[in-house]
Amino acid sequence: MTEPGPALPDWLAHRAATSPSRLALIAGGREWTYQALDAEVVRTARRLAGLGVRPGDRVATLLHNGPGAVLLTHATRRLGATLLPLNIRLTPAEVAWQIEDATPRLLVADARTAEVARDACRTLATVAVIVLGSDGTLGAYPEAEVSLHLDAAPDDVLAIVYTSGTTGRPKGAMLTVGNFWWSALGSAMNLGQRDDDRWLATMSLFHVGGLSILLRSAIYGGAAIVHEGFDPLAVNRAIDDEGVTLVSVVATMLQRMLDARGDAPYPPTLRAVLLGGGPAPRVLLERCAARGIPVVQTYGLTETTSQLATLAPSDVRSHLGSAGRALYPNRMRIAGASSPEDEGEILVRGPVVMAGYHGRPAETARAIVDGWLHTGDIGRIDADGFLYVLDRRDDLIITGGENVYPAEVEATLLAHPLVAEAAVVGVADETWGSRVVALVRLGETTPPADVVAQLAAHCRASLAAYKTPREIIVATAPLPRTASGKLRRAEVRASLAGPRTPPISAPGTTPGAS
Amino acid sequence: MTEPGPALPDWLAHRAATSPSRLALIAGGREWTYQALDAEVVRTARRLAGLGVRPGDRVATLLHNGPGAVLLTHATRRLGATLLPLNIRLTPAEVAWQIEDATPRLLVADARTAEVARDACRTLATVAVIVLGSDGTLGAYPEAEVSLHLDAAPDDVLAIVYTSGTTGRPKGAMLTVGNFWWSALGSAMNLGQRDDDRWLATMSLFHVGGLSILLRSAIYGGAAIVHEGFDPLAVNRAIDDEGVTLVSVVATMLQRMLDARGDAPYPPTLRAVLLGGGPAPRVLLERCAARGIPVVQTYGLTETTSQLATLAPSDVRSHLGSAGRALYPNRMRIAGASSPEDEGEILVRGPVVMAGYHGRPAETARAIVDGWLHTGDIGRIDADGFLYVLDRRDDLIITGGENVYPAEVEATLLAHPLVAEAAVVGVADETWGSRVVALVRLGETTPPADVVAQLAAHCRASLAAYKTPREIIVATAPLPRTASGKLRRAEVRASLAGPRTPPISAPGTTPGAS
Repeated sequence: MTEPGPALPDWLAHRAATSPSRLALIAGGREWTYQALDAEVVRTARRLAGLGVRPGDRVATLLHNGPGAVLLTHATRRLGATLLPLNIRLTPAEVAWQIEDATPRLLVADARTAEVARDACRTLATVAVIVLGSDGTLGAYPEAEVSLHLDAAPDDVLAIVYTSGTTGRPKGAMLTVGNFWWSALGSAMNLGQRDDDRWLATMSLFHVGGLSILLRSAIYGGAAIVHEGFDPLAVNRAIDDEGVTLVSVVATMLQRMLDARGDAPYPPTLRAVLLGGGPAPRVLLERCAARGIPVVQTYGLTETTSQLATLAPSDVRSHLGSAGRALYPNRMRIAGASSPEDEGEILVRGPVVMAGYHGRPAETARAIVDGWLHTGDIGRIDADGFLYVLDRRDDLIITGGENVYPAEVEATLLAHPLVAEAAVVGVADETWGSRVVALVRLGETTPPADVVAQLAAHCRASLAAYKTPREIIVATAPLPRTASGKLRRAEVRASLAGPRTPPISAPGTTPGAS
Repeated sequence: MTEPGPALPDWLAHRAATSPSRLALIAGGREWTYQALDAEVVRTARRLAGLGVRPGDRVATLLHNGPGAVLLTHATRRLGATLLPLNIRLTPAEVAWQIEDATPRLLVADARTAEVARDACRTLATVAVIVLGSDGTLGAYPEAEVSLHLDAAPDDVLAIVYTSGTTGRPKGAMLTVGNFWWSALGSAMNLGQRDDDRWLATMSLFHVGGLSILLRSAIYGGAAIVHEGFDPLAVNRAIDDEGVTLVSVVATMLQRMLDARGDAPYPPTLRAVLLGGGPAPRVLLERCAARGIPVVQTYGLTETTSQLATLAPSDVRSHLGSAGRALYPNRMRIAGASSPEDEGEILVRGPVVMAGYHGRPAETARAIVDGWLHTGDIGRIDADGFLYVLDRRDDLIITGGENVYPAEVEATLLAHPLVAEAAVVGVADETWGSRVVALVRLGETTPPADVVAQLAAHCRASLAAYKTPREIIVATAPLPRTASGKLRRAEVRASLAGPRTPPISAPGTTPGAS
């Protein structure tokens, strides 16, 4: 939870004043200096004001990565409003749920998300859907003369980023100006910060990983390079030709970059590859270390404004497999640990911890106890303070960099009349890290022959594609449960490891990083 | 004035944990890694505890630059105590005054300052004088088992640094942990921050300029290189052979470095030469620009924890002569300015502004009004926010990097029975920037023939050598005053510009940077 501190003048405006001609952004095939980006942000802010956005309002976005998402991020802040970046893979029903929960003034979509946005808002009279022009701007709307906000208090909420949880109901993590500031500083104190830094965002800007790259770059006065989606060839090309010094990836992305590259070395301008998204395959880390690729593991959550711990480049050889130490001045500890190396839940406190869940004081109080955020993830910390993440929370499936919470998928399956019990787990997958697999017990003794296809269609209609099970397996016995009736997912997962026969066909969309 | 913020774990301990084998310090012909420096600081802290220092106490130092001054700085903080670094050029009476004002528990001297320290404390029963061993440590004293302070609140007072003022009575500027933290961040946001940075401190560590280099380096995890005094050959050698990337100097030092070097270029590892200490000669700036030496002007005060504004390297060519913009997130303005370019007193607010003057609420309230520190210096700020310092406060003389406040020297002269009026001003000097010159009117019509020699001896006995007038001139008419009786120093200064005949001989010690 952020504690107060001095006012923080708008980072982008500060950079536009102090380093106007420095490169700020490469996105959508165009480049912006700080001066040019700031000017466009001012126009965007005035157009948002013309659309009725006032200080304290929330502005939802349903946008592919590109200039529009960047402009909306900075412009919302400049108005004193809060960004609500929604995942473009959500179904209309999922979008509607988050809109109702966070009550934004506007929902800004792009040409490709406009239909979902309109569907989602059809029954919500209070939110207007605005669609960006083909140039990624709000150029079609008039600018209103309003005073802009060049000052922020550290506890102003900059963004509300939704994340699911054990209940399966997404919760909006309130991330403040101070959260992003301390996150950027902690990262700089660990990795250094250079005038010529260019940080490549291949991750979606609606995730905290991508969003924090944007804001961190503005704080440093470096450049953010934003790719619309993850394309290993494009990433390798940007590293070779565009001077990328830092890039954030998950394991599957890194593997694909290496596969696409063959044996060619990366240029020395590449300072660090931040590898997040859960425990990384040891063989991948070793392969990179052997090839001299500066991969540093990192561990973070939405609730910690991205990176919470990151291995310093100088510690890679001695601590391969560790996610490093907590970034200054945050602290980590293992719940209940009585000596180093004890395993348990990772707890964290410090200025990168979110202000809480929007509108959910009870869930906030359960997540943050005496100032310590309970991550739900399991790890150990050695005597020197190095964190080893052993397992993401047992109800979390990370597939291609997207988080899937089993409870949400199980709730969808249980809503189908044929399903009596459902357990959803992640099964190791070479390409995606994990894939989503469901085990269901049916309520009827003689179900229809196409029951699996029916359930798959039901999931596709309700859930974003990346959450939809790759396989649905019909159990012949009650699912394993504890004495108190709680699902034993670990047992289900163990029983499902390895390929299944026959798998149902995977839904059309690939999971993972867009 | 620092506002609160998150707790800031001890920087040095953090670095000892996160980058133990990185170079932390070169001083006195030795090198320390962060691990080694931290271990010695722990021992020093325990020895201070053995000498009776408790959290909240003040520890005065009267030390030449070297390992001992570095260890005491960090060890004092580690005990939760406050450092009181005294200028080694002070007379015993001046030391005694500051000791009585700040009431430290101990005064730590070195072999060369021990006599002055003992003289100063002869009549002060409450303070013990401790002398460092020849290795610059407190190794002769036993360690006490005490718990050390690894956490600091941003508003903990880290150091009290004395500075004089219009009254001539030195005041202790209370500089907090948060002040130094924000100072380091603002500098990093302007100059970048690299793992291989090595910042050379040629300035005394009892001045804020030197002290802040030490603390900033620990925050960044870079190395501080501490020279005992300013030797242009040694500075040039350190830049060539020891990988100095940043060095802080005043104009006279830079001139001497260039004189000693001839036409040889500086290596590209030298990222920036921070030039402080008042308006710089334009010809010097132009000479450096022409030779490609990365000189950036900087402006700061004790009360702003060193740098407040620093020209970014990329702005040198377009804004030669400017001290740059306020370091993030501080602000500057010109008192009473109604449009850009208006000249007036420079005001500043932000987290680098001191917490106040120790024990002087009334003087603090006069200095910091509605959150704005009144610097007393005159400048203008152009439409793009660039500061041009036109004149340091008219009562401040900067001679070889040391600040001399005329009121203090005038008070000393007026204490002599022969003197009826005294005006002390700075006169331009090729070597020292300014030299201290006194104009006195005598009370007797037929003074003794050796009156000037008598007054010079009187000043030498009471004042640090650098404050003692280089010349004392006897006026033949009343000194120029305003209607309300205030000295018109500017008029005195104008009348004295240029060489005087006959000057009295300069006192033995050279003024300026040790």
